[in-house]
Amino acid sequence: MSDNARITFFHSPHTRSSGTFALLEELGADYDLHLINMKRGEQRQPDYLAVNPMGKVPAIRHGEALITEQPAVMIYLADLYPQAGLAPAIGDPLRGPYLRWLVFYGSSFEPAVVDRAMQREPGKAAMSPYGTFEQVLATLEAQLAPGPWLLGERFTAADVLWGTALGWTTQFGLVPATRLIQGYVERVAAREAMQRAAARDAELAAQHEAEAEAAS
Amino acid sequence: MSDNARITFFHSPHTRSSGTFALLEELGADYDLHLINMKRGEQRQPDYLAVNPMGKVPAIRHGEALITEQPAVMIYLADLYPQAGLAPAIGDPLRGPYLRWLVFYGSSFEPAVVDRAMQREPGKAAMSPYGTFEQVLATLEAQLAPGPWLLGERFTAADVLWGTALGWTTQFGLVPATRLIQGYVERVAAREAMQRAAARDAELAAQHEAEAEAAS
Repeated sequence: MSDNARITFFHSPHTRSSGTFALLEELGADYDLHLINMKRGEQRQPDYLAVNPMGKVPAIRHGEALITEQPAVMIYLADLYPQAGLAPAIGDPLRGPYLRWLVFYGSSFEPAVVDRAMQREPGKAAMSPYGTFEQVLATLEAQLAPGPWLLGERFTAADVLWGTALGWTTQFGLVPATRLIQGYVERVAAREAMQRAAARDAELAAQHEAEAEAAS
Repeated sequence: MSDNARITFFHSPHTRSSGTFALLEELGADYDLHLINMKRGEQRQPDYLAVNPMGKVPAIRHGEALITEQPAVMIYLADLYPQAGLAPAIGDPLRGPYLRWLVFYGSSFEPAVVDRAMQREPGKAAMSPYGTFEQVLATLEAQLAPGPWLLGERFTAADVLWGTALGWTTQFGLVPATRLIQGYVERVAAREAMQRAAARDAELAAQHEAEAEAAS
């Protein structure tokens, strides 16, 4: 890959990819924005399925490489901009916990939230990737308790993911807005770059809504 | 963390952590093995819950850091032993796809397999982390098709994960043992380090079985 290969970011506002949108703002990254209007079902059109056959966002293309799955995209991007300081480097004592919590989001937290949203039981303990919803929440709250950030004093890309995810899951009533969680969500959201990203994402969402209405 | 901090690996034979056990063998890693006899329910005992409140394996402790979630553990370990060459380095064009496929395992493949094993429908497209089982399988097979390894010519830690995972999921009939998948599983399993790990893991499983019987 040449050093000047551009990053293309495939994004749909007010979806899972909004966390990545915020991370790019936190990193001060230079990239081409490729919008997918999910209100018009563009994620299921051949053009986008040729990029990501899973029809999901976020996805980024960097040179020939396609990267999907929000935790992977975030690990990749934060390592690409070490000057922003959002990824503990390999060899840093925080590197392992940083990876743990990014992966935990997709492998344990999301499956637990989906089961809860669908009001169904988790699988048997030996099969379930997450145990119980209560266990996931207790593990998360124990990690957040020392604060101010997920890994303690250092703000990382993991906070961009968890801050945005806990924002929408508490809003939808899928995760209890305890004082600890609410305080954390507000601390993340108050950051200047997070506010810029949220404002821009809201504009894009309104624009997509208008386009979908005009087409219907 | 001091450079000579030891790695402790919390392992239960013939479980999800068997992939990590194999990776440690592939890496030629030096570590302390801490066995958890799941046949005796040791993963739910206070001793182990103090290490990992989720009661899951694999987990590793390195210095003060606890790392859980198999994809995170594998990313961490493979980066720790660059001389083994199982992790494309940051800046390598394969780094992004490598992260994508490790995370995809926990975030998309496992949830799809669990739903299939429990014979239940995935969530609505907007909520499901994986879409449909068929989409996951088609995406995986398209990636495996060029071969011989998941990322092409280069064998990586992602192959240790996918080779072992596709081994047990095809054995249990959760994933169809197509010629493509079966061939891949066999190629991974045929590697010398993988064979050593599998033999040792089978010994440990027999030992745990005997201990559990003796105690009952």
